Amino acid sequence: MPVRPDYIRPLDFKSGRIDMSHGAGGRAAAQLIDELFLRAFDNPWLRQGNDQAAFEAPPELAQGGRLVMSTDGHVVSPLFFPGGDLGCLCVHGTINDVAMAGARPLYLAASFIIEEGLPLSTLRDVVSSMARASREAGVPIVTGDTKVVEQGKGDGLFITTTGVGVVPPGVRIDGAAARPGDVVLVSGTLGEHGVAVLSQRESLAFDTTIRSDTAALHTLVADLLAAAGAGVRVLRDPTRGGLATTLNEIARQSGVGMHIDEAAVPVLPDVEAACELLGLDPLYVANEGKLVAVCAPDVADAALAALRSHPLGAAAARIGVVTEDPHHFVQMTTRFGGRRIVDWLTGEPLPRIC
Amino acid sequence: MPVRPDYIRPLDFKSGRIDMSHGAGGRAAAQLIDELFLRAFDNPWLRQGNDQAAFEAPPELAQGGRLVMSTDGHVVSPLFFPGGDLGCLCVHGTINDVAMAGARPLYLAASFIIEEGLPLSTLRDVVSSMARASREAGVPIVTGDTKVVEQGKGDGLFITTTGVGVVPPGVRIDGAAARPGDVVLVSGTLGEHGVAVLSQRESLAFDTTIRSDTAALHTLVADLLAAAGAGVRVLRDPTRGGLATTLNEIARQSGVGMHIDEAAVPVLPDVEAACELLGLDPLYVANEGKLVAVCAPDVADAALAALRSHPLGAAAARIGVVTEDPHHFVQMTTRFGGRRIVDWLTGEPLPRIC
Repeated sequence: MPVRPDYIRPLDFKSGRIDMSHGAGGRAAAQLIDELFLRAFDNPWLRQGNDQAAFEAPPELAQGGRLVMSTDGHVVSPLFFPGGDLGCLCVHGTINDVAMAGARPLYLAASFIIEEGLPLSTLRDVVSSMARASREAGVPIVTGDTKVVEQGKGDGLFITTTGVGVVPPGVRIDGAAARPGDVVLVSGTLGEHGVAVLSQRESLAFDTTIRSDTAALHTLVADLLAAAGAGVRVLRDPTRGGLATTLNEIARQSGVGMHIDEAAVPVLPDVEAACELLGLDPLYVANEGKLVAVCAPDVADAALAALRSHPLGAAAARIGVVTEDPHHFVQMTTRFGGRRIVDWLTGEPLPRIC
Repeated sequence: MPVRPDYIRPLDFKSGRIDMSHGAGGRAAAQLIDELFLRAFDNPWLRQGNDQAAFEAPPELAQGGRLVMSTDGHVVSPLFFPGGDLGCLCVHGTINDVAMAGARPLYLAASFIIEEGLPLSTLRDVVSSMARASREAGVPIVTGDTKVVEQGKGDGLFITTTGVGVVPPGVRIDGAAARPGDVVLVSGTLGEHGVAVLSQRESLAFDTTIRSDTAALHTLVADLLAAAGAGVRVLRDPTRGGLATTLNEIARQSGVGMHIDEAAVPVLPDVEAACELLGLDPLYVANEGKLVAVCAPDVADAALAALRSHPLGAAAARIGVVTEDPHHFVQMTTRFGGRRIVDWLTGEPLPRIC
């Protein structure tokens, strides 16, 4: 049980702001931890007040399971956007990266880099959203760190989250495991996250009803693995760079080609329209609640059915096949029956989308 | 084996700079990973090219060991200082936080938040230093992430490192475990890191021969535990806020007081002089290669001997005792025989020291 020092007055969440002392490791930092982070994330590991969290080994390890670790910096701008905010995004993003190994996510660590002058109310809102996302996913934030940089040396708030998880015995998901003949599935419609964030940019502000798809996908992955087992070869979430980049990454890692059918790729009409307005291709726009699954052909139907019976996979679709291709090209049959190469994202159409 | 896309030309480490495309997740990001991070950190986990690293469970877990996780954002300014730089600091800092649980550090994750315009040569120098520190410590960097923010929205480079480790069975180090009568040890002289960084600040630049003490302490911890076993109750590295803040944290967590003897606290004469010049108290100045150990009285001599026989603990000293104190005060007998309270750090004497 930590013993509270007698702070002169509680943090002023109405009109207070972050100052350099909140990052200096002294009394102000301890107060911020007590009155904001500990209350929001409340769990036994954090309450211990150590510089690290210790926990028992998960039972899967005794049966030959493996551990998995993933980290992601989150610098999305603006901090709040339709359907989400930096807080839930940084929880979902890291849970998903852990889950894409076929793992059960166990714990999260969070590192905050805060710009001096950030309203305490903004920080509290982001932290509350993180806490909610973490509770809903059942993956606690067990350790963390806070640094403060001078005004003009940051941009409000950056959060790096790191997750650990356990891969059940027998599961071997790997970006290098795709084979010619495999089937490519996506778990739903593409491009909502990117468009929702862009709709809020000062220089681009436009009206849209599109909301970010940000969501934790670990239960969807668990259902998929239960249905399709070792037939699931690759899982990856098409975030920055979108579906096109993710498919190119997998093709390169596995040393294969891919052939996608544009008409089969699910995109909401509003996203299609917004992308036309912005001069973007939805295939390159970021998602935060979708996955690409490459499956053996004999489990593809079962895999698709498992995705579709989960609320986060209702619009799942079979979009293409893995091919033999020494150039590792991703090719696409367009809606008009033509064929084109879907290249890597080049340049920077969508900075700070996550 | 990742298949390299045919980049038009290799990265220009001589005069090139980071631009927004390096953070967009497309071809430029993939090239940065291939030609910088993969080459520097080279290990089988990174080479897999997945968004996460999977590894076998360490053998200690089968005997009842526990896992431990710690994260730290590093925003030190300037990036290079006498005795170190952001790169080795972010490796040592997180290894130390993991080691302070009595753990064997296993793996690191690294998340880079880079300001647009950072010279590629600067990034390469920092990354080389990280790679060297990681290799020397035997703790590989197995997964990572890179984001780029616009010029003026960051400050060159921030790196968050997260470590996982394994606590051997039977080891139960905890900030709440100090008991009245226990002995307080430090592993060496205090204040070098903070003074070394401050000596490089534009507004403060002064000549000094003081070098940062940045170092990985996991082998020192292993030697200490081998000598003093379960008699080691608390370990903590006195970073931000210095020894004074660390002792106050432990006193608060354990619900005890402490009594320190100023004459026994080792401080180099040059650090003493620099602190006088800067108006600082060395007790509040950050260290990056020192630890505080609270030990049961019957193992204190063995613990001190173990620290002193390790190269990183040669100047270790017994500096005080744990007392019963309902106010959880840290008190100090000064060199002149007086007694004063060593309070928490308040305010912000040393921003961005780590």
